[in-house]
Amino acid sequence: MPLRVVQTIDEVRAALTARRESGAIGLVPTMGALHAGHARLVERARAECATVVVSIFINPLQFDRADDLARYPRPLEADLALCERLGVDAVFAPSAEEIYPEPPDVRVHVGQTAKYLCGAFRPGHFDGVATVVLKLFDIVQPDVAYFGEKDAQQLAIIRRMVADLNVPVKIAPVATVREADGLALSSRNQHLNAAERALAPALFRALTAAKNAVAAGVSDAEAVKRAATGTVPVDDRLRIEYLELVDPRTFQPVERITGPVVAAGALWVGSTRLIDNVLCTPP
Amino acid sequence: MPLRVVQTIDEVRAALTARRESGAIGLVPTMGALHAGHARLVERARAECATVVVSIFINPLQFDRADDLARYPRPLEADLALCERLGVDAVFAPSAEEIYPEPPDVRVHVGQTAKYLCGAFRPGHFDGVATVVLKLFDIVQPDVAYFGEKDAQQLAIIRRMVADLNVPVKIAPVATVREADGLALSSRNQHLNAAERALAPALFRALTAAKNAVAAGVSDAEAVKRAATGTVPVDDRLRIEYLELVDPRTFQPVERITGPVVAAGALWVGSTRLIDNVLCTPP
Repeated sequence: MPLRVVQTIDEVRAALTARRESGAIGLVPTMGALHAGHARLVERARAECATVVVSIFINPLQFDRADDLARYPRPLEADLALCERLGVDAVFAPSAEEIYPEPPDVRVHVGQTAKYLCGAFRPGHFDGVATVVLKLFDIVQPDVAYFGEKDAQQLAIIRRMVADLNVPVKIAPVATVREADGLALSSRNQHLNAAERALAPALFRALTAAKNAVAAGVSDAEAVKRAATGTVPVDDRLRIEYLELVDPRTFQPVERITGPVVAAGALWVGSTRLIDNVLCTPP
Repeated sequence: MPLRVVQTIDEVRAALTARRESGAIGLVPTMGALHAGHARLVERARAECATVVVSIFINPLQFDRADDLARYPRPLEADLALCERLGVDAVFAPSAEEIYPEPPDVRVHVGQTAKYLCGAFRPGHFDGVATVVLKLFDIVQPDVAYFGEKDAQQLAIIRRMVADLNVPVKIAPVATVREADGLALSSRNQHLNAAERALAPALFRALTAAKNAVAAGVSDAEAVKRAATGTVPVDDRLRIEYLELVDPRTFQPVERITGPVVAAGALWVGSTRLIDNVLCTPP
């Protein structure tokens, strides 16, 4: 079936009504600027669902900085070509006015799960994410929705939202795709110049150091974090925003490691902010 | 078909799966203690839908006072008998643990629409209402949900939630049912003793005075409110919590009346709090 590109809520609902009986509908929510990490999500959806919908929407509600929103990449043509190649059935690419005809007065609010890490450094970010994801779920009404593990706190929050609000959608996590040197794929990587790109794998190396320390039996979180941050080169272009060990479900910081924890970090490389995470399991 | 009473989310979803193809599902969300006002909602649902579900759940999240929650009436046997008589297909009467296995970390938050009237006097009340209504919508997945106009701010908030979050449910408002002396039916009326019951219609009389003033061309909201509150007898057992004129959609207070407004009031009668509202239209 050829790729259908739809811009309005009415169109996407109409396009899906007939397909609902043919089997499961899979949704891959994205902000576009698709890379191999997104492709992995789509491939999983394609393998598991009768109908695959990719949404491309740069959600203004989740940007805490106007400059970040303004410079977020928007290569729509290339995105559509990739979707076509991957056998996507429909791309839903609405305007901001279609999604927010007026500022939403009723929103989704995330509590403790958004308190630390990105939630602490990006005020309102996760309320914006949760609100738009719930809207996309209510618009598309998918059976399954696919999210990358790279955005681990986002994934934990979406799972919590689905549980707390009884949202009838199954959440499918998909493993992070990495470059050969460990750098997690991200639409923001294209902002890096060559020198910054060479420095960027420092984040994954630090998180891997945390993983190794936990695997070696270090149970004091401060000691693990020191081992991790100690691997980051001293360089004016690198600034660690946070590097934390948190409970995989609640995303609350852990002091003593007695079970699996997520090592999560945000690293500024020049003017680009990168995030990544690694699951750490004690011996 | 005989009335089915189900307590769990899995049961109610399973019971409805087969019925979804027979036509529309109507949901009447209630906190029980059903009266003729609820009956009117159910009758509308029965006339319009193939399947009628009544939920009975006293939502702890929306009570700002523990004593109010503790003394809220719970006559389940009588409620089920009424549902059976009205031809309800299923009553969903879950426990608090079924709906909240743990305190929800992700909730629905209402902004400006909850700022005045009941929202100002009952902190967190409408976030609790919106959260449980969205959960009930996600559990039952009705085509239509029925709400009484007596709780006008609640109705405005549910409508706003459905619009802002693209919830695929049609909201059907149902007119307030009143006693012969004008008192709006409410589960809380049964807390009134005989003397209080005799005083209680003062609220509807005040709101009717507002309506008459607006219809007579009074356009200054303060003057309309004075005309309304002036009708309330001076009595130690009566205390006006608020009496306000608001925009019917946004529920923001109005200073000059240039179109339809809702006159809404809350009146304490002894230890019982009553609310009511009347739509006022200028000449």
